[in-house]
Amino acid sequence: MIRVTIWNEYIHEKNNLQAGKIYPNGIHSQIASFLKSDDIQVSTATLDMPEHGLTEEVLKNTDVLVWWGHVGHNDVRDEVADRVAESVLKGMGLIALHSAHHSKPFKKLMGTSCNLNWREDAYERLWCIAPHHPISMGVPSSFVLEQEEMYGEPFDIPKPEEVIFTGWYKSGEVFRSGCTFTRGYGKIFYFQPGHETYPIYYNEHVQRIIKNAVAWANPLLKLEKLICPNTQPLE
Amino acid sequence: MIRVTIWNEYIHEKNNLQAGKIYPNGIHSQIASFLKSDDIQVSTATLDMPEHGLTEEVLKNTDVLVWWGHVGHNDVRDEVADRVAESVLKGMGLIALHSAHHSKPFKKLMGTSCNLNWREDAYERLWCIAPHHPISMGVPSSFVLEQEEMYGEPFDIPKPEEVIFTGWYKSGEVFRSGCTFTRGYGKIFYFQPGHETYPIYYNEHVQRIIKNAVAWANPLLKLEKLICPNTQPLE
Amino acid sequence: MIRVTIWNEYIHEKNNLQAGKIYPNGIHSQIASFLKSDDIQVSTATLDMPEHGLTEEVLKNTDVLVWWGHVGHNDVRDEVADRVAESVLKGMGLIALHSAHHSKPFKKLMGTSCNLNWREDAYERLWCIAPHHPISMGVPSSFVLEQEEMYGEPFDIPKPEEVIFTGWYKSGEVFRSGCTFTRGYGKIFYFQPGHETYPIYYNEHVQRIIKNAVAWANPLLKLEKLICPNTQPLE
Amino acid sequence: MIRVTIWNEYIHEKNNLQAGKIYPNGIHSQIASFLKSDDIQVSTATLDMPEHGLTEEVLKNTDVLVWWGHVGHNDVRDEVADRVAESVLKGMGLIALHSAHHSKPFKKLMGTSCNLNWREDAYERLWCIAPHHPISMGVPSSFVLEQEEMYGEPFDIPKPEEVIFTGWYKSGEVFRSGCTFTRGYGKIFYFQPGHETYPIYYNEHVQRIIKNAVAWANPLLKLEKLICPNTQPLE
Repeated sequence: MIRVTIWNEYIHEKNNLQAGKIYPNGIHSQIASFLKSDDIQVSTATLDMPEHGLTEEVLKNTDVLVWWGHVGHNDVRDEVADRVAESVLKGMGLIALHSAHHSKPFKKLMGTSCNLNWREDAYERLWCIAPHHPISMGVPSSFVLEQEEMYGEPFDIPKPEEVIFTGWYKSGEVFRSGCTFTRGYGKIFYFQPGHETYPIYYNEHVQRIIKNAVAWANPLLKLEKLICPNTQPLE
Repeated sequence: MIRVTIWNEYIHEKNNLQAGKIYPNGIHSQIASFLKSDDIQVSTATLDMPEHGLTEEVLKNTDVLVWWGHVGHNDVRDEVADRVAESVLKGMGLIALHSAHHSKPFKKLMGTSCNLNWREDAYERLWCIAPHHPISMGVPSSFVLEQEEMYGEPFDIPKPEEVIFTGWYKSGEVFRSGCTFTRGYGKIFYFQPGHETYPIYYNEHVQRIIKNAVAWANPLLKLEKLICPNTQPLE
Repeated sequence: MIRVTIWNEYIHEKNNLQAGKIYPNGIHSQIASFLKSDDIQVSTATLDMPEHGLTEEVLKNTDVLVWWGHVGHNDVRDEVADRVAESVLKGMGLIALHSAHHSKPFKKLMGTSCNLNWREDAYERLWCIAPHHPISMGVPSSFVLEQEEMYGEPFDIPKPEEVIFTGWYKSGEVFRSGCTFTRGYGKIFYFQPGHETYPIYYNEHVQRIIKNAVAWANPLLKLEKLICPNTQPLE
Repeated sequence: MIRVTIWNEYIHEKNNLQAGKIYPNGIHSQIASFLKSDDIQVSTATLDMPEHGLTEEVLKNTDVLVWWGHVGHNDVRDEVADRVAESVLKGMGLIALHSAHHSKPFKKLMGTSCNLNWREDAYERLWCIAPHHPISMGVPSSFVLEQEEMYGEPFDIPKPEEVIFTGWYKSGEVFRSGCTFTRGYGKIFYFQPGHETYPIYYNEHVQRIIKNAVAWANPLLKLEKLICPNTQPLE
């Protein structure tokens, strides 16, 4: 049983008509609806909850955290962002979706600006360039998102361990749309699709990829705390 | 002074009207013409020369080998291909151009099939996704080749050390168009542009990239022979 | 159920008294004895069998191939070595043990000389430097092999995807003793311990590592054949 | 001309007799003495200077920053640490020496705890495992530091781009003693030797490695500021 917590700032869906129409109960609820299964137990948390719903207790009982954030990045308190990043180092998986590239926890774990180019309203085709990877299983060699925000190169991230998807935009750009990283004991997957005004999380391939990523990021072991011992002489 | 040898099978330019019109003295001559400089000394070699022009002596005196081949791959003798691959392990740089992805030396050094998808007649835009890399210096963030063959993902190569250019095709595909590898003491750059029926090697950005790659692949040291010692006890 | 084939040249055990005493039925039988389980179905194959026991049919029905070879490297027929390497590209996992660093299939897949330094009779301590990796699960942070052959750096391999174990020798050397690679759809694990005159494959940690590696290398999918299509226009 | 700034907290040398005896003018002065040359222009800066000697102006005019810190890590002001890290993203090279693994700028750039094992008073042999790398030029295959602090695995860093040196300790441990990273446009080299109570920076090989690292980390280009554009439609 994988214990997944889906975190969403949950702002656009309440302020923007289009977003609210597509995700009447929030992006987190839609992601929860397709992740829930016999193997995956899902909880959700949002910015407006005490400690943004990400207490020590919650993180301790989370195997994989899914993160969606955008206009609320700066409202996430530093101690919560630090707690999330440290939980990843101790083993918790992290799936950073779309504009989470600029979220505090993701930026802390990357150590770079995570800047990228962008433009609204694009037609995207995602190519799987690592067809052997567990996150690619069951995903076609390419698939189309008729409407998506354009996120383009250069993308200021450390070199990913694996680039699994490359995005192609009709307007002429490319992007490393699906990237994996390991930090400490934790596995991280950044996945570009998911602009709030398009029904991206209803796409079957996007859903399959996020499900695969949850299984991939599920930790083999989680540490109680980060260790920094003064080594005793070896026997 | 960097000593460059440009190897070309030199077949299409003699058999195909269009190729012959664009490269009347062969692709190798055109590449030689823009590489020659106060810092770079250029020689050329072709398939029809004894030992394909790549004797032990020639390779010993080559710092960086540029390779263009296509229909003649199977006519390259195994002992010459082995000699080239071993020279790379001993430090010689290798720039594998376009269809050299299926050349014997490149495949030996990669250990994979190097298969890719392809289709004739495409419009390509190359994006620089590693703008800090020496091979990118002076190259714009993207540039267009109005006509080029399409080489698309998946590309069956070992994970590159650096993907420097990603190709975008108007027809919908993407490709890791500029990739670096280190094998033994040698540096390898694969660069996708260069179909024989288009004037690719007259493009200023393509020229700049190949010049940069030659400087990057120039070895700091070249071994006399591959070493496999039985280590003596340490002092 | 993972279908494992253990290949052993099976020469030392018949010619060398010490090796024969430790492995009276061959190294392959000892490895088979600890791998066999409800989840793993084991077969063995040796050099003296027709086609070295590695027919198309056998490889088609092998999920993970374990390879032990040394003095018989050159007696492995090229077409069998090619068949093994191609099976890896199509998805079969490969565990290359000890002197298999110089085996034909491993060298083909690496593309380098795979040379290393070596000396007989060493005391080794193996350190786990990737404690989050599935191959490390249940393995202590370090463990000792009181007698082992010394394999030391430099080791002429392409940069591994992950260095999981680093060997420390009392005599002063170090070595990347456990390394992973992906080639095509296949996963490869090179693991240094296993000199034939020491009871290495009776060590509980070595056994655990090989078991973990088999599970890790078990393919998610295996191709019928390597694909090199001429892509049709996208819809 | 490479403009190098050597930063040192400069505390031990004033408080600890042994450190003061070895480095009467501070570790930074000793490093400056061997770096200074016709090609390298050296400045120094210390913790007790205004803004720790690392103003915007200083960093703008620094190509490569060398950092030595230990007990003063927490006294480095966050805005200065942020400024250093951002300068690296914009292209400035960073050489992090010894206990700088826990310095604020290095940790920010890595995104991990950078914890490691350690013990006082060890005998170390450093092995060059990337003999083709520019940082290795002129360095023997291994060399000894008769006295050094032991820094051992596991070392909680993101996977390095290149592990150039592996440390072997007589007491039984190993360590990734020389590691490279790229973050944004900046190159980073972590190098483990340099405990303040041993004359490490008088060792000729250590000096050669730091000189090589400075040349390697010298930026090809430095940005005025980090860019995050809203891309205009392509022509």
